[in-house]
Amino acid sequence: MQQDAPNRVSKIQDFLSKKKIDACLLSTTVHMLYSNGRIFNGFMYIPADGAPVRFVKRPIDYADDCVFFIRKPEQIPDILLSLGYAIPKRLLLEGDEIGYSNWIRLQQCFPACECINGSNDLRRVRSIKTNAEVSLIRQSAELHVKAYKKIPEVFRMGMTDIEFSIEIERLMRLEGNLGLFRTYGEMEAFMGSVLTGDNADVASPYDFALGGAGHYTNPIGAAGIVLSDGKSVMIDMAGNFTGYLDDLTRTFSIGKLPDLAYKAHDTSIEIHLKLQELMKEGAVCEELWETSLAIAKKAHLDHCFMGKRQQAKFVGHGVGLVINELPVIAAKSKDTLVSNMTIAIEPKFVIDGVGAVGVEDTYLILKDGCEQLTKMDFSIVDLTK
Amino acid sequence: MQQDAPNRVSKIQDFLSKKKIDACLLSTTVHMLYSNGRIFNGFMYIPADGAPVRFVKRPIDYADDCVFFIRKPEQIPDILLSLGYAIPKRLLLEGDEIGYSNWIRLQQCFPACECINGSNDLRRVRSIKTNAEVSLIRQSAELHVKAYKKIPEVFRMGMTDIEFSIEIERLMRLEGNLGLFRTYGEMEAFMGSVLTGDNADVASPYDFALGGAGHYTNPIGAAGIVLSDGKSVMIDMAGNFTGYLDDLTRTFSIGKLPDLAYKAHDTSIEIHLKLQELMKEGAVCEELWETSLAIAKKAHLDHCFMGKRQQAKFVGHGVGLVINELPVIAAKSKDTLVSNMTIAIEPKFVIDGVGAVGVEDTYLILKDGCEQLTKMDFSIVDLTK
Repeated sequence: MQQDAPNRVSKIQDFLSKKKIDACLLSTTVHMLYSNGRIFNGFMYIPADGAPVRFVKRPIDYADDCVFFIRKPEQIPDILLSLGYAIPKRLLLEGDEIGYSNWIRLQQCFPACECINGSNDLRRVRSIKTNAEVSLIRQSAELHVKAYKKIPEVFRMGMTDIEFSIEIERLMRLEGNLGLFRTYGEMEAFMGSVLTGDNADVASPYDFALGGAGHYTNPIGAAGIVLSDGKSVMIDMAGNFTGYLDDLTRTFSIGKLPDLAYKAHDTSIEIHLKLQELMKEGAVCEELWETSLAIAKKAHLDHCFMGKRQQAKFVGHGVGLVINELPVIAAKSKDTLVSNMTIAIEPKFVIDGVGAVGVEDTYLILKDGCEQLTKMDFSIVDLTK
Repeated sequence: MQQDAPNRVSKIQDFLSKKKIDACLLSTTVHMLYSNGRIFNGFMYIPADGAPVRFVKRPIDYADDCVFFIRKPEQIPDILLSLGYAIPKRLLLEGDEIGYSNWIRLQQCFPACECINGSNDLRRVRSIKTNAEVSLIRQSAELHVKAYKKIPEVFRMGMTDIEFSIEIERLMRLEGNLGLFRTYGEMEAFMGSVLTGDNADVASPYDFALGGAGHYTNPIGAAGIVLSDGKSVMIDMAGNFTGYLDDLTRTFSIGKLPDLAYKAHDTSIEIHLKLQELMKEGAVCEELWETSLAIAKKAHLDHCFMGKRQQAKFVGHGVGLVINELPVIAAKSKDTLVSNMTIAIEPKFVIDGVGAVGVEDTYLILKDGCEQLTKMDFSIVDLTK
């Protein structure tokens, strides 16, 4: 990842140049990983033209090109001047992500400078992956599939959704999952979600595709419900095996499900197959959403598409360093797909008395099509067989 | 927790009244849990005097007293007026925690209002727990101890630190650990840290007591090292069994350790026993730190106290909804302890070629003393016996 960091810095610099912004000053974990390939506590200064400068508080033995140890950001301007860098006139900061007080403090370090909120622009830069990033997402996807294939082995009749989740978490960790589930914004989940029965339709405060009661201190996913005959079990755990996340959902069953559940699951597969045809450079996000919704409608399943009581208005999203990268495959999104975007597609249905069904896969967008990175059979697997 | 929320709201209101601030508007997860006992996506408006108002975006079926569904914060002032609330003249916001752009947007909703950054003040309010909060931390501590007692059962010779961690994570989860490890600020860890050998002294970018190489995308803790004879294994996992965290560290060994390791471990215990005498309402944080450091010095172990290459300058910290609550038991801290604070004390030493030793326990501060909430034997347990 460090070898690839200069490629990602170049992408940021291209953006800065295009927008006539002199530099950016980054400090959040995600942008340290993105622009530096390693985390330090401090600030990454990237001029539109020239080499980045690392202002490091910790670790105290941090070794890299162009490192300056500082105690406080007020030291930054003098160091820049001493290096022969001009003080920026327009400086991009992570305005949606760093606290108000941090922004004000950084602004006061550069009193003559116009500070610009670049959080959304950085998300857009990040949405198109370098080849090295694609490799890491591909690697996560492969290990994710490897772990998911073992899921039936850890099922025991009489388990709760939480107990099942614990065994799947262990499987994932043993395949190298790092555990951390990074998100953008005020949403949290522990490794992912296991949904069974009517818990699948419990509305959540978060912007995930489906909800689940979870625990009141983290209301998402499994809620301590015994897995019982005739119910589906949807497994949607995040695949952080490399720092880069893929996203993969498969549906299991305890015995046989009602016909409607299989019909809805097949509709999810139908949406995938259609989007596999449509996804390529230039495809418009809202059209992919409209196509998905139309297939759900044609099957008379739009009332339970992406939830029932609280319906999500998207069918997919970018993945990368966080689970909810741009773009969003959503109504009214004029965004278009670009080669090397990595997109999770997750058409899901909630069936009363049964649970959630459907599949989620991660795709790599290509010039003339797309590639499924999470290669795994789509079918509902009966855990009792 | 919902039954206790009015007590916590009262504590916030007392603070607002004292500082002549008219109201606060909260939106981060931690403050939703704190002031409301449940999470929703939206804003919790708490006037210095009067009932809180909940402005909810999601979940759409959120039911509680005084709930108004909104799409955007710009709707808030009109709703307040319609309820007969005055528009605040001084409004407290979470200025260290909400993004710059969110702050600006909220400020523009109340153009005539002075917005005040209350993040640190809210941390101070949160540092003194209600009795219900103490009960939840006590419950976490009890379950934490229960899980830790089973640690020797899951050790197998030849395991790596990561494999050992995975089995302990599972133990913890089966005892009810919720997994999420909430922190304040830009630091992250997955459930906690397992340190063995010289990995214990790898400097980290984070503000944890010790480091460890971890993975480059989350440089803390276990790094894939085989647990081998003569090495210590320090287990420091966070105890989120109730949404409220306790903190507990115990040291294990693979066979016999060098005498110096036992001496250092005994010094950690000596610091605990001394602080157990000193901790009570009115005790000054820097004095507790100085006492700890003096004991380490007397044992000629100050060079490896709280790390070696990068030493932490604290020996303890508050715990609660996040792992790093106030106060910090640190040099130059004039803060004093108050009844119902919950404090983790973690004197740790790093021994070359061996690893980290020491214990961490969570204490409840009382008027005339303190109570150890994590009741567990201090000794180093040999995993091979």
